Order: sequence, then C-alpha cells, then structure tokens
Amino acid sequence: MGITIKKIASDLSLAVSTVSKALGDSHEISEETKKRVLAYVKKLNYVPNASASSLKKRKTGNIAVVVPEVADSYFSTAINGIESVAQVKGYHVIIYITHEDQVKEQSILQQFKSGRVDGVLMSASSGKKITTHVRELIASKVPLVFFDRACEDIEAAKVLTNDFESGYRATALLIKKGCNAIAFLKMSENLYIIQQRLKGYQKALQDHGVKMEKEYIVSCTGHDLKNHSLIKKLLSREGRPQGIVGSTEKLTTLSYTVCNELGLKIPGDIKVVGFSSMGIASLLNPSLTTITQPAFEMGKAAATILFKILNGNKADQKAAEKIVIPSTLYERASTG
Amino acid sequence: MGITIKKIASDLSLAVSTVSKALGDSHEISEETKKRVLAYVKKLNYVPNASASSLKKRKTGNIAVVVPEVADSYFSTAINGIESVAQVKGYHVIIYITHEDQVKEQSILQQFKSGRVDGVLMSASSGKKITTHVRELIASKVPLVFFDRACEDIEAAKVLTNDFESGYRATALLIKKGCNAIAFLKMSENLYIIQQRLKGYQKALQDHGVKMEKEYIVSCTGHDLKNHSLIKKLLSREGRPQGIVGSTEKLTTLSYTVCNELGLKIPGDIKVVGFSSMGIASLLNPSLTTITQPAFEMGKAAATILFKILNGNKADQKAAEKIVIPSTLYERASTG
Repeated sequence: MGITIKKIASDLSLAVSTVSKALGDSHEISEETKKRVLAYVKKLNYVPNASASSLKKRKTGNIAVVVPEVADSYFSTAINGIESVAQVKGYHVIIYITHEDQVKEQSILQQFKSGRVDGVLMSASSGKKITTHVRELIASKVPLVFFDRACEDIEAAKVLTNDFESGYRATALLIKKGCNAIAFLKMSENLYIIQQRLKGYQKALQDHGVKMEKEYIVSCTGHDLKNHSLIKKLLSREGRPQGIVGSTEKLTTLSYTVCNELGLKIPGDIKVVGFSSMGIASLLNPSLTTITQPAFEMGKAAATILFKILNGNKADQKAAEKIVIPSTLYERASTG
Repeated sequence: MGITIKKIASDLSLAVSTVSKALGDSHEISEETKKRVLAYVKKLNYVPNASASSLKKRKTGNIAVVVPEVADSYFSTAINGIESVAQVKGYHVIIYITHEDQVKEQSILQQFKSGRVDGVLMSASSGKKITTHVRELIASKVPLVFFDRACEDIEAAKVLTNDFESGYRATALLIKKGCNAIAFLKMSENLYIIQQRLKGYQKALQDHGVKMEKEYIVSCTGHDLKNHSLIKKLLSREGRPQGIVGSTEKLTTLSYTVCNELGLKIPGDIKVVGFSSMGIASLLNPSLTTITQPAFEMGKAAATILFKILNGNKADQKAAEKIVIPSTLYERASTG
C-alpha cells in the first residue's frame, strides 16, 4: 500500500518506535499522542497487514470473548458492556460461542495460543471440570479475564456477581410468599456460579426451617427438549413444588411453557423466580420476578481489567483479581 | 513445536500438498482423507501458527459473521444456523457486532482485507446507504454472502426471506381483525428488507381500501429511548391506530411497554403483530402474533453457500446467488 510506519512517523515528526507503540496502545505513550497517531492512520486509510504485523508485534488489535451462547440476555448484554470499553480503545471484539461444548471451547482456546488475539474474556462452558486448556492458554502468556462463569481453581482476574446471596434472596422471597416446597432448576453440576446459587437456596431453606427434598433439585442439561420433560415430570408429580427458582433464563422460561401446558397458574398454583437479565421480563404473562445480574457492568469491568493487563499495568492486574458486582432482585407478578 | 506438515504427510504416507489441502478443506481432497488428516492432527495437538500459516496459505480457518447486534432472536438464531455448518467443516465462526454503526462496520470490513478471515457472512447495518467498504472487500477477493439484510445493489450471494409478502400478510391480518387505522414501525429508511416490509404493508392497505396515513408510518432509530417516545407519541394522539405492525423485534416489544404505560389493552384497544424469531413470543402478555423468519435455516443456507465458494465451486456460487426462504405467520392473542 506504500504507507509504512516509517512514513507515518516521519509525517508526524515522531520516532518509529513511538508510532509502533501508539498503534499497539502501549501504556508508555500518552493518550494525546495515541489519538494523534490513530487519527492520522485513519485519515490515510492505513491497514497493517494482519499476518505480517502480528508476527512482528504480536499485536492483533482484537480481543476475544468466549461465551456459551449469545441467545441469552445475560451474555448479549455483557458483550455490549465489553464493546463499550473496546470501542474507546480502538479494539475489535470478536465473539466465539462454545455452545456449552468443552471440546469446542478447547479448540477455540487452542487457536488463541498461536497469536490470533491480544487477550481473552471468557465465561466458561458448563461441561466437565477440565481446565487444562485454560491453564495452557494462560501459560502461553495470553491474558485472560473471566466474567460470570469462572473456573474457581484457576488464578486469573475474575468479575463475578453475588450468586450465593442471590440464590438465598430468591428462595427467601418464595418462602415469604408462602411456599413450603421449593424446587431449584440447576444447570450443570460443574459451574461454580450455579453451585453458589444452589448453596444460597439450601441455606435459605435451612434458615427458614423449610424441608429440603432431593427430588426438588432438578439437574438440567444443555438440551431444551430434555429439560422440558424433566420440568414437566417435576410439575406433574404428586406433591409438586409451590415455588421454583430457575438458575438460568432458559430454564425459567421453560417453566412458564410447562405451566401453560399443564394448566398451572402462575402465581396461584406455583410461584416462579428466575435468574435473567431479560429486558422484557415485565412483559411476560405474568411478569417475571428476576434476579437481574449487572450484565453490562460486569462486561465493562472485565474488559477494563483486560486492557489494564494489555497495557502492562501488572499492579492493577493483581489488585483487581476478583471483582464482585451485586445482582438486583426485581419482584414482579410471578411471585404473587 | 517440532510438528510440521511434512512430518504429518510422512506419518500418514500422503503427499505434503495433500495434507496442506486437507487442512485447508479443499474440494480436491476426499472427505475420508480430510477426516484422517484432521484426526491425526488433533491427536498430535498440532497448531499451525496463525500468522505464519495464513501468510503462506491465505487460510485462517475462520469465517466472520458481521451482524448489527446479537441481542435479537433473529441474529442469535441465525448464528446458530451458521455454526451448525461451520462446525462440520472444522471452521471457527467469529462474530463481529456493528451496533448499526456504519463507521464500525467499515472498520471491521477493513480488517478483513488484510487476511484475518477466509470469508464473510454479513447482515448490513441500518446506517446510510454507503456500500464502498463492501465493494472494496469483495474486490479484495474475500468471499462475502449476505443474509437477511443485503445491500440490494451489490452483486453477491444473498439469502433472504419474503419480506414484501410478510409485510402484506401481517397487515392483511390486522385488517381482517377489524383494524381501519394501522401503524407501521419502521427501522431505518435504507434497509432493503424494511422497505420491502413497508411496501407489503402499503399494498395490503391499498388492496383492502384502508386509508394510508403518513403519520402512521413511524421512522424509528437505533436508540431505544427515542423510539420509546416516538411510539408513545403515536399511541397518545387523537385518532390513534387500532393496529401496529412492528418491523423489528425491539420495536414490537417496545409497543407492548408503551401500551402498558398508557393503559391500552392489547388486543382490545390495539392489536399488534411483529417481526420476531423470539422463542418466548407465546409467553408474552398477551401472546404475540409474529412473522417468524426462518432464522436458523437462513444462517445455514448462507454458510453453505460460503463454503461452496471457499471450496472453489464457482458454479454453485452463481447458481445460488439469491435464495429466498419464506417466513411463517403465527397468529396469537395480540391480534385478538
């Protein structure tokens, strides 16, 4: 293309290394200089060759977001939070979906080791508790920040919400509303955040003297059809629960569907509270009581930490190792 | 890493070029051989260096999906359709969000010119009708297939749905249900698919002798807050419409919110039909009549065309230039 970093440096009366570092968003360069270089580069329509430049500089201008799915309000909103930060930094956000498939997750992370992205924001899939691929990625010096679904035994920065407390509050609300038999719809044995929500549920039952029944804790999977029949079985049995805590959005809306099919009235026959960041929770029939996670803020916080690490600000990396942003309980008609 | 294509070829008693082509998913190589090579490569844990290998082979193993947003059931479902094809081909799908911002879209496409991905599946943002960046990408020999939101004046493969007919059917249903004044909530002047939906609406009004009023065609934007006040204004005026056609999911659910705020009953005071692939349309209060686009199938079809092009099957590229998969009208309670 004829345009080189050398030419840009000469045109702007800067050192070649300064331009290079500015393009790499190094913390050694002032924001003002970065802006000046980026504006000029944009004016020239200069595109560094992706392959060539990443070989030399190990700098791609991309950060990866690895999520189990995007058809879920939590993840789609968290991604928007991440983009709000990356946009300002001039980075592209590229999104990879694991579909809760650990083999796919491994293969995606494998790719990153060969320098496709500068850093990774990840919400783990719900498969088996294998974390070798995550450890290998971190060992290969690709910065990684977890958000929401972290591998709890891996040392990396984490942005979480208060899952234990939220599970507790959701359950305590159902008890307060008169439920004596409360089910918990669980996704995956191995996700730390679901374990925490479940522990909160159990503690609330215990504190309020409500009997804990094993059959009320339903282990769901990644398959909607199977979950549908599990929930149907739960709600069809004698002595069915009077309240449901849905630990994910899909399991919660599935409960609505099953109640409709069985002619069970919410909240009259059964009360429902679910973890969801869905904007239209209030438009459901009946409007859904939710534990709403601070999805946008969590995405934003995770991206902010990642860029601090990318800028070589290691003090920040340690200080910010674990951020917890609390969720909010919104009481609506589904809990009566 | 010590493992090279040469070693793999020697171990499997294949020519180096065969292994290279198999890894590149070339149509010259049999599926059986590809499977054999991929299985062996997986066993060895071999990662071709992204930068080095893409420089030589112009092959990244990635396809890009460029969409306006993921917080919309159409796009999240279409992405799943795309992944269902890419998964089989051993490709990674990487997702870029434009947030309806043409400058961002330009910058993303600019990136692709320097060889980051092997091909692009795109649903255009709703900004101004500038298509230079798309033309430039195609000129730089990166294969591109449009799905849903195509630039109608660009020669490229396109997977569409029957937007004109769907707009017509949605409007005709409202007329059949007794609406004499029907509003159309429009997103962007410049999107071909919205224009088609609008034309269908206009034709249905005309065919049924229903008066067309300019003020009933509301030009919405990418900003929820602004759209909210536009819809509120529409529904607060004297002689407010008796029916609404929402041309996107967000505009439709926003109509529900505004009706709730104004105390308007759906479908008693106003009937609503919206374009949406939302799985929970039937759970809304009242359940929402939808034009449901074949999102998964459209994504799948678009990806299938792209892989045909990537395999050098140019005959297919021409034959498949425009695929139209029809949408379905689901009548529910919101149209009474």
